[in-house]
Amino acid sequence: MNFANSQSLFRRAAAVIPGGIPGHTTPAATVPGSVPYFAAEGRGCRYRDVDGNDFIDFMGGYGPLVLGYHHPEVEAAATAARARGAVFNHPTSLMVELAEKLTSLIDFADWAVFGKNGADLTTWSIMVAREVTGRPKILKIRGAYHGTAAWCTPGHGGLIPEDRAHIHDFPFNDVPALEALFAQHHGQVAGLILTPFHHPAFADSQLPTPEFVAACNRLCQQHGALQILDDVRCGFRLSTDGSHSVYGYKPDLAVYCKALANGHPISACVGRTAHKAAASRVFLTGSYWNDPAPMAAALATLDIIVRDNIPARLTALGERFVTGFLSLGEKHGLPLVASGPPAMPYVRVGDDPSFMRTQQLCAAAVAHGVFLHPHHNWFISAAHAEADIDEALHRLDRAIHQLKSLHR
Amino acid sequence: MNFANSQSLFRRAAAVIPGGIPGHTTPAATVPGSVPYFAAEGRGCRYRDVDGNDFIDFMGGYGPLVLGYHHPEVEAAATAARARGAVFNHPTSLMVELAEKLTSLIDFADWAVFGKNGADLTTWSIMVAREVTGRPKILKIRGAYHGTAAWCTPGHGGLIPEDRAHIHDFPFNDVPALEALFAQHHGQVAGLILTPFHHPAFADSQLPTPEFVAACNRLCQQHGALQILDDVRCGFRLSTDGSHSVYGYKPDLAVYCKALANGHPISACVGRTAHKAAASRVFLTGSYWNDPAPMAAALATLDIIVRDNIPARLTALGERFVTGFLSLGEKHGLPLVASGPPAMPYVRVGDDPSFMRTQQLCAAAVAHGVFLHPHHNWFISAAHAEADIDEALHRLDRAIHQLKSLHR
Repeated sequence: MNFANSQSLFRRAAAVIPGGIPGHTTPAATVPGSVPYFAAEGRGCRYRDVDGNDFIDFMGGYGPLVLGYHHPEVEAAATAARARGAVFNHPTSLMVELAEKLTSLIDFADWAVFGKNGADLTTWSIMVAREVTGRPKILKIRGAYHGTAAWCTPGHGGLIPEDRAHIHDFPFNDVPALEALFAQHHGQVAGLILTPFHHPAFADSQLPTPEFVAACNRLCQQHGALQILDDVRCGFRLSTDGSHSVYGYKPDLAVYCKALANGHPISACVGRTAHKAAASRVFLTGSYWNDPAPMAAALATLDIIVRDNIPARLTALGERFVTGFLSLGEKHGLPLVASGPPAMPYVRVGDDPSFMRTQQLCAAAVAHGVFLHPHHNWFISAAHAEADIDEALHRLDRAIHQLKSLHR
Repeated sequence: MNFANSQSLFRRAAAVIPGGIPGHTTPAATVPGSVPYFAAEGRGCRYRDVDGNDFIDFMGGYGPLVLGYHHPEVEAAATAARARGAVFNHPTSLMVELAEKLTSLIDFADWAVFGKNGADLTTWSIMVAREVTGRPKILKIRGAYHGTAAWCTPGHGGLIPEDRAHIHDFPFNDVPALEALFAQHHGQVAGLILTPFHHPAFADSQLPTPEFVAACNRLCQQHGALQILDDVRCGFRLSTDGSHSVYGYKPDLAVYCKALANGHPISACVGRTAHKAAASRVFLTGSYWNDPAPMAAALATLDIIVRDNIPARLTALGERFVTGFLSLGEKHGLPLVASGPPAMPYVRVGDDPSFMRTQQLCAAAVAHGVFLHPHHNWFISAAHAEADIDEALHRLDRAIHQLKSLHR
C-alpha cells in the first residue's frame, strides 16, 4: 500500500499548520508511515484515502459516523434545512423540536441546550454545577478525556496553575479514592464529571463496577454535588436513551455529541428542572449555533437510532467482530485482549506494554484494507453489514498470518 | 405584523430550554414582543419568519452571512465536499489548501489552524501566548466580546475567581491605561487581545486612534507580549487581508470566524513562524473539526471576497444606507447618531441613554419589514443590491414617520 500522496500533502501541511495535522487525527498518534494521513471520500462503512487506498473503517471519524458515511436520510434532512437558509438572526423551530425530542428520549432530561462540540458543553456543564452550588470544586476520572479546554486538556502546553486549581481526579472504579476526595473537599464539591465507562487512550477500556456507580450516585446526593455524565463518545451507541440507563448512573446533566447527528456539527446538554434557572444564568452561545441544518440532521439521526434500534445492532455487529477477531488470534497463536462494550470495542496484543506489537497489528490491518487504531477504542457503525464484518475478519486473517510469518 | 407563531414556539421552547432561546439571539436582547423570535427561510439579503413576515435583513445572522443567505457558489462547494463524505479519520486536502490560502492572503500569517467557533480560537490563542512567553497575564479591552469562555464571557453565572485571576482590562483607546497595565505587570504579560475597532453592545462603536494602534504595537514589542487580534466579527468585511491592515495593527496571532465561510461552521487562527513550535504544543481539536464541507465553503467564500472585492462593496453599500438613514432623521426631526465603519454600521437615536427610543425605532423598522438591532452593530452583506438599500430606506421613511406621529 502506497501513501505517497498522504506524505506529500503532509509536507505541505507541515509548512502552513503547526504540527502538520493538529489534534486527535495526528498521524503521530497512530503508526506514522504505515497509515493514510488524508482522506478523500467515504460511503457507508468504507472510505478511500488520497492515494486511492480503500478501507473498511472501524473508527467512524473517531465516533460521529454512527450510521456510516453519507447516510441518505440524514443528508436529505440536512440538505433540505440548509436549502431554506443557515445561521439566521433567530433559531428555527428545529431547535425546539430537537429539545423536545431529547427530553422525551432521556428519562431524567427536562431541558436541553445545544453547542457545536462536546467540550463546549462539558465546559459549560461544570460552570452550571458551580452556579447551582456556589462551590468551585470539580471531581473527574484520572485520564478521562473531556475536551481540550484548559481545565481538562490532555495536552500540557499553555496551562497556568489557576486552570486546575479546583479540578481533582481519582482512578476510575476506585470508590475509596472518590470517597476520600468528597471528604477532603467537604462542602466544596460542585460536581462529579464521569464518562459512562473508562476509555482512555493507550490502555484497555474499563466498564464501571456496580459498586462504583452506586457510590457516584450516593456521594453526589449526599454532598449536594451535581453528577455530570460526559456521554459525548458513548451516547446513543449503547442505548437509545443515554448511556446512564445502561449502567445505572443518576446524572443531573448529560452531554451528547458524536453520534447525535451522524457527523453534522452539534452537541447537546440535558438537565433537570431543579437546575434550569441556574443553567439559564450561564451564558452560552456561538456564531453558528443556531444553524438549523445540524439540528435537522440530529432529528433524523435520532429517529433512525430509535426506529432501527441501532445500539442493539451495533452490539450484535461488534460481538461478531470481536469474537471473530479473538478466534483469529487463537488460530495464529497471537495473544489478543479485547475490552470495552462490543459496540465500541478495543482489541490489542497481549503482553505488549510498549504497544509496539499492537501497532504492528494495526499497521498490518491497514495494509490489508482494515482501518484500526492501535491506541484508541474503535467504533462499529450501523453501515457495517454482517458481510462487511466477515470481509474485515477475512482480511485480518491474512494480516495476522503475514505478521506471524514476519516474526517467525 | 403578527408574531403569534413566534410566541407560541417560544412558549414551547421555554418549557424545554433554559431561557427559551439562550445566547445572543435571545429576544430579551432586542425588543421583546415587537420582533420575530424564530426564522423560517432566507435568500440573499431577505428572510421570512415563522409567521410569514418578510424582512430586509441588516444582521446577517450576527455576522456570518457576508454574501447573504444560501449563496449559490458557496453552497455548491460545500455540497460537493459533503457528498464525498464528512468527518473522516483524517483531514482532507481542503485543510491544507485553506491554510495555504489564508497564509497567502494575510501578510504576517505563516501558519493557520482551524476550529468551529470564534471562542475556540480566541481561547486557544491566549494559551499559545502563555506557552510562548511562559507568563500568565492577558490584557483585554473593557467590554470587548471574545466569546462565552469563563475567561471572557459577558455573563456572570458559573464563574470562580481563578477564571480571571490573570485577565486585566483597560478602556479602549486609552493609551495611559494600557501603559499602566504593562508597567504594573512588568514581565508577566503573555498577550494583549484586541478587536480591530470597539463594538460593544449597548454603546456606539469606536474606531481606534492612530496613537492607540501605535501604542499597542510598541508596548507588545517592548514587553515581549504577543498581540492577538480577535478579527472574528470584522475579518474579511473591512479588507480582503485581515482588519489589521486597515488600522495598522501588527498582530502575532489573529482569529477569523464569522465571514470566513458565509455561515458554514469554521474559525481560523493564523500566526507567525516564531510561535509555530509553541502553537503545536497547545493541544487543539474537536469532534467535527476535520469536516471538509466548511473548509470547502471557506475556500469558496474567500475566493469570492477577493474576486469581487467584497469589502469595498460592503463599504459603498453601507455608506449609501447610513447616509440615507441620517437624511431620514433630518427630514423627520429625529436626531440620529451613526458609528462604526460603514460595512458594519450602527445607528441609534441621539440623547437616548436608556435606549428606549432606539428600541422604538428598531421595532418600527421591524414592523415595516427591515430587521435592525437596537443594541448591536449591524452587518451589510454583498447580497444587498443598491435597490434593496433604497427599498429599506423607503420603508424606514414610513417607519420614522409613523413613530413621529405616535409621539406628536
